[in-house]
Amino acid sequence: MNEQPPSPPIIGVFDSGLGGLTVVKALIDRSPDFSLVYFGDTARFPYGTKSAETVIRYAIENTSFLIDQGATIIVVACNTATAVALPRLQSLFSTPIYGVIAPAAARAVAVTKTGNIGVIGTSRTIKSRSYTKAILQLLPEAHVTALACPLLVSLIEDGAPSEAIKKLIVSEYLRPLQQKNIDTLLLGCTHYPLIETLIQEELGSSVAIVDPAKACAEIVCPSIPCNSTTTTYRFFASDDTHRFKAIGEAFLGIKIGKVYTQTG
Amino acid sequence: MNEQPPSPPIIGVFDSGLGGLTVVKALIDRSPDFSLVYFGDTARFPYGTKSAETVIRYAIENTSFLIDQGATIIVVACNTATAVALPRLQSLFSTPIYGVIAPAAARAVAVTKTGNIGVIGTSRTIKSRSYTKAILQLLPEAHVTALACPLLVSLIEDGAPSEAIKKLIVSEYLRPLQQKNIDTLLLGCTHYPLIETLIQEELGSSVAIVDPAKACAEIVCPSIPCNSTTTTYRFFASDDTHRFKAIGEAFLGIKIGKVYTQTG
Repeated sequence: MNEQPPSPPIIGVFDSGLGGLTVVKALIDRSPDFSLVYFGDTARFPYGTKSAETVIRYAIENTSFLIDQGATIIVVACNTATAVALPRLQSLFSTPIYGVIAPAAARAVAVTKTGNIGVIGTSRTIKSRSYTKAILQLLPEAHVTALACPLLVSLIEDGAPSEAIKKLIVSEYLRPLQQKNIDTLLLGCTHYPLIETLIQEELGSSVAIVDPAKACAEIVCPSIPCNSTTTTYRFFASDDTHRFKAIGEAFLGIKIGKVYTQTG
Repeated sequence: MNEQPPSPPIIGVFDSGLGGLTVVKALIDRSPDFSLVYFGDTARFPYGTKSAETVIRYAIENTSFLIDQGATIIVVACNTATAVALPRLQSLFSTPIYGVIAPAAARAVAVTKTGNIGVIGTSRTIKSRSYTKAILQLLPEAHVTALACPLLVSLIEDGAPSEAIKKLIVSEYLRPLQQKNIDTLLLGCTHYPLIETLIQEELGSSVAIVDPAKACAEIVCPSIPCNSTTTTYRFFASDDTHRFKAIGEAFLGIKIGKVYTQTG
């Protein structure tokens, strides 16, 4: 009797748009020997301003789509969706599902020396207190200062009227965190790693920056059996696949090839 | 034989979110004696970053929804949707459909003395060149300077880290228009009237500001036979009706009552 070899693992990653590509980059950087399917829900971007019920509905639809595409592991690369929908997804689907919050909280707790940890994110992510709760669960004596920076996503995607203004906005957002003497800053939004250099300059080298994309890859990658003989990366977006390809290649630093359309 | 009186007119207004309420306010301010149904597509906001095909699809769905709700006149209060979808809507539906662009262009042309007209809007609206084309059709010798201000919607909805930064962003965006010596500025995005004072301060009183919401109300209102015996205003949103009510009342300056849910 012929025994079928196990199907090679395929990581399915979804995000509200392009931001989750920072998670894809971290996964590929860490171990490139797996196949991947990405879905960016660009037609319904952003999630950060939507209600919890709506984000949960979108997250369920996106997970089903990725499983239909053959995904055997799901990574929720969107902070907002992880914050409000992860437990619901894990209870609905039998496929292993990872978010970005728990790995990032664990990394922040491992890195901090003083326990003064800052978190920045969208209004919805900060309001959910998910990062704060995840950190305090691991380190109850931590002092967590969480701050919404609602203008940053638009600033990163669309640019500012000038570089000086960009620097000024980042500087004003970070000031309350500096006043709290944080020694660790968690970037609670997938877009923020794209201005990590600017943030690091503003905070100085004494503050450690935790990128949830890298923290997530550190947890997910070791769990993947690397028995793939072929590696394919496929990208889907629910809108404007041309813009996705152009900006996406800048996010990833690799050529994306074709971006497929997914209509909801 | 009893003759049925004609049904009272109901204006149906849609927008990608809350911004279109500036059009509702202008309509009510000008003639409050009609009924109105508003749909804010908050679950799919914003339209300004979406592809033309997607915006057209959404605009058709929204128009059908308003007609199902009894609307006898449609106002597309969204600049992006007017720019990319109005001709398509007018060819698909027999109901009269008005946009915000043609009335605003006519107003700008009536107001300008030098023909130097500035237009500000979202990236998508400016890229469509709809305002520029509409102005040049009426006044071929006009000099139109159109400028995308992608950060302003987020700035108006979510606030800036400080008032000083808000002023600085507006100032830097407007500088190229001041260098062109515009005497008229058209606010090509429904959100912008909310910072009209700040814009007027920046430009000085010699520059006339044209608000498409008011220009649209001036065209639409005289076309409505005011034979209504009852006046009702109904508001629908596709997401987060609580936020819609809270921010919407600030936009309108009147109590909204219940906001109904519309799920797509």
